[in-house]
Amino acid sequence: MTSPIITFISDFGLDDWFVGVVHGVLHERCAGARVVDLTHAIPPGHVARAAFVLEAAAPDFPAGTVHLVVVDPGVGTDRRALAVRSRGFWFVAPDNGVLEWALAEPSAEAWSLEDRALFRQPVSRTFHGRDVFAPVAGALACGHDPAKLGPRVKDPVRLARTAIEAHRDGSAREGDLDGLIMYIDRFGNALTNLDRSSIAHAFPGVAEADLEVHAGGRRIAGLARSYGDAKVGTVVAIIGSSGRLEIAQVGGAADSRLGLGIGDLVRMRRRGAS
Amino acid sequence: MTSPIITFISDFGLDDWFVGVVHGVLHERCAGARVVDLTHAIPPGHVARAAFVLEAAAPDFPAGTVHLVVVDPGVGTDRRALAVRSRGFWFVAPDNGVLEWALAEPSAEAWSLEDRALFRQPVSRTFHGRDVFAPVAGALACGHDPAKLGPRVKDPVRLARTAIEAHRDGSAREGDLDGLIMYIDRFGNALTNLDRSSIAHAFPGVAEADLEVHAGGRRIAGLARSYGDAKVGTVVAIIGSSGRLEIAQVGGAADSRLGLGIGDLVRMRRRGAS
Amino acid sequence: MTSPIITFISDFGLDDWFVGVVHGVLHERCAGARVVDLTHAIPPGHVARAAFVLEAAAPDFPAGTVHLVVVDPGVGTDRRALAVRSRGFWFVAPDNGVLEWALAEPSAEAWSLEDRALFRQPVSRTFHGRDVFAPVAGALACGHDPAKLGPRVKDPVRLARTAIEAHRDGSAREGDLDGLIMYIDRFGNALTNLDRSSIAHAFPGVAEADLEVHAGGRRIAGLARSYGDAKVGTVVAIIGSSGRLEIAQVGGAADSRLGLGIGDLVRMRRRGAS
Repeated sequence: MTSPIITFISDFGLDDWFVGVVHGVLHERCAGARVVDLTHAIPPGHVARAAFVLEAAAPDFPAGTVHLVVVDPGVGTDRRALAVRSRGFWFVAPDNGVLEWALAEPSAEAWSLEDRALFRQPVSRTFHGRDVFAPVAGALACGHDPAKLGPRVKDPVRLARTAIEAHRDGSAREGDLDGLIMYIDRFGNALTNLDRSSIAHAFPGVAEADLEVHAGGRRIAGLARSYGDAKVGTVVAIIGSSGRLEIAQVGGAADSRLGLGIGDLVRMRRRGAS
Repeated sequence: MTSPIITFISDFGLDDWFVGVVHGVLHERCAGARVVDLTHAIPPGHVARAAFVLEAAAPDFPAGTVHLVVVDPGVGTDRRALAVRSRGFWFVAPDNGVLEWALAEPSAEAWSLEDRALFRQPVSRTFHGRDVFAPVAGALACGHDPAKLGPRVKDPVRLARTAIEAHRDGSAREGDLDGLIMYIDRFGNALTNLDRSSIAHAFPGVAEADLEVHAGGRRIAGLARSYGDAKVGTVVAIIGSSGRLEIAQVGGAADSRLGLGIGDLVRMRRRGAS
Repeated sequence: MTSPIITFISDFGLDDWFVGVVHGVLHERCAGARVVDLTHAIPPGHVARAAFVLEAAAPDFPAGTVHLVVVDPGVGTDRRALAVRSRGFWFVAPDNGVLEWALAEPSAEAWSLEDRALFRQPVSRTFHGRDVFAPVAGALACGHDPAKLGPRVKDPVRLARTAIEAHRDGSAREGDLDGLIMYIDRFGNALTNLDRSSIAHAFPGVAEADLEVHAGGRRIAGLARSYGDAKVGTVVAIIGSSGRLEIAQVGGAADSRLGLGIGDLVRMRRRGAS
């Protein structure tokens, strides 16, 4: 086997030693693995944020990658621990909805982690990232048989899809495509839940230049081809690197410029539509 | 040899390039090593904080791991540089007390790093992490003979044990076990210096449910089994993942809730003791 | 081939998933490579800061290291993407001046990255770190022939050298050596652009003790041998770990003590010179 990749998302931050200890267990259980930190800046216990980051980042990795997610406010309770095989990847995480993207694939298979012989002993009450999830992620990266992890799970916890409808007001027109801002990145770009395929489905055959985007009280005409094509200061709408509609400002931060925040409505409309 | 692990603690932060340069030297001196960052957020020169993190994190690594600690306010003076073999690990650090946990083990052996042929040349005045400690840590990870590092050291600098007695007031009762808050983690959990064995020694045969913990002006009845067993908002005392008593708040931050800080007294008592 | 090293500088921060995704591509394209993060805290789009960090850190790595720099405000425009061979290293970055240190070496060779077969498909409009630069950096680390990258570039974008002259006022004397503060590090040390060789050239045969440094309205007599040789609180001038003159405070932060900032004038003079 060549070097398998294990990615790692958590709410541990980088100031304490928790991330490093998990790395140690991963290396101990799968000596050849490469461990790649995606982010450890998830706010404590913020399952939905971690689920979004996983969905945005995971597709960029090669098939066979193990994605480890430890955002686990229920650690030590009887919530299950899961391994999921989906979309060509492995996922290891608590059963709290953080694997929504993996589970939304109909062919996904899930196992409950119950073979304690795999765990790090003694299993603590408070740090299953070290004692349960990392040992299993390491084992899967090195080829462990998932059928030996524990019983199959048919009813994993799902994350409620954000109800866009609740945000709609009387201003919507026939044919509008509404989405929400899901994430603000370091550059102040506002990432939405509208992806390339949902846009193409809503506006079949319409050129990007013939669309308009409404966000933060502003109307943005057309989709830009890059951050740098317009003048510094211009607010643009663009399909970002994870295939989602983003609101950005050239050379600036769209979130502060337009007062955008997570959960805000973003509306797409054919230009000139009445 | 399989892949040895080198852990790394420093006060370098992550904004400058110092951590990366040390990684480069470690890879250059021991190509097969895995480098694991424990934390680089130690406040500049804060030896005691680094010593605590080392004690909390190091036991989680496999035997043979090299623990590199560079918190070195005396860099460039005539303070010694040490390698220590203790508890199945290697430790490399300045001789300023940061290796207290390693040295507290009676069988620990220490060497002064004086073989300049191992160092990165020229040795700078200000960055022995790169020029002295990393080359030696890399060499040890790849099997270098410690006897060739330099002379044995019989009087390494020790860290003064925090004087709990000074905190005791007239309220202590016979049989109380007093400790101190040593560390506040990202989740606002207050970690103490009371570990499982000292608690068992002070209260032989007493069930966890029959203990009480006094901290921040509050009495906490019994030790919890997990963060998630009580209602959100509840303050609990729990044995944390490194085997120490912690004060935590379910779904919250105990430090701000109770006004807890490093150095505060934490008292354990048998429930109903008079 | 043993394990090649790929260093990585960006303005991505560590809160989002962008750094991790680039690591994934590097491992995918060169399975044996070691990826070393230098910093991801470059302020968004700050090319000159990244160029300084590269110059300070790159020389510490072994020959053959690939230095990847992604600070790319022009992503998606027609700015070129470069690979440069210089000083025994490879460099991969946008053609915006960030490789000034590599290009200042007269024997440097540059190629424009135009072989799209190397890129990650589809190439996004906004994340060439993932889609263009990382694939090429990985390929070079694993021995890819640079002649196959694309055509040679004879006119790469250069970074304007900071005009020290503009800062000089009537107070300069014959024989003074003037420099600028280029960087403030975590410890509050102020790093200048005056290096060992320019100091030796300006003051041939003069002992370090016979020099004085003027910065922040203060005169500092002589160059110190280490941070720790003087009393706590003392402000010292010292040749730092990357061979540049630094202004430091023993056990403190020189920048706040003296009110130093990037761009401030630092003047060296022979003691007693009139």
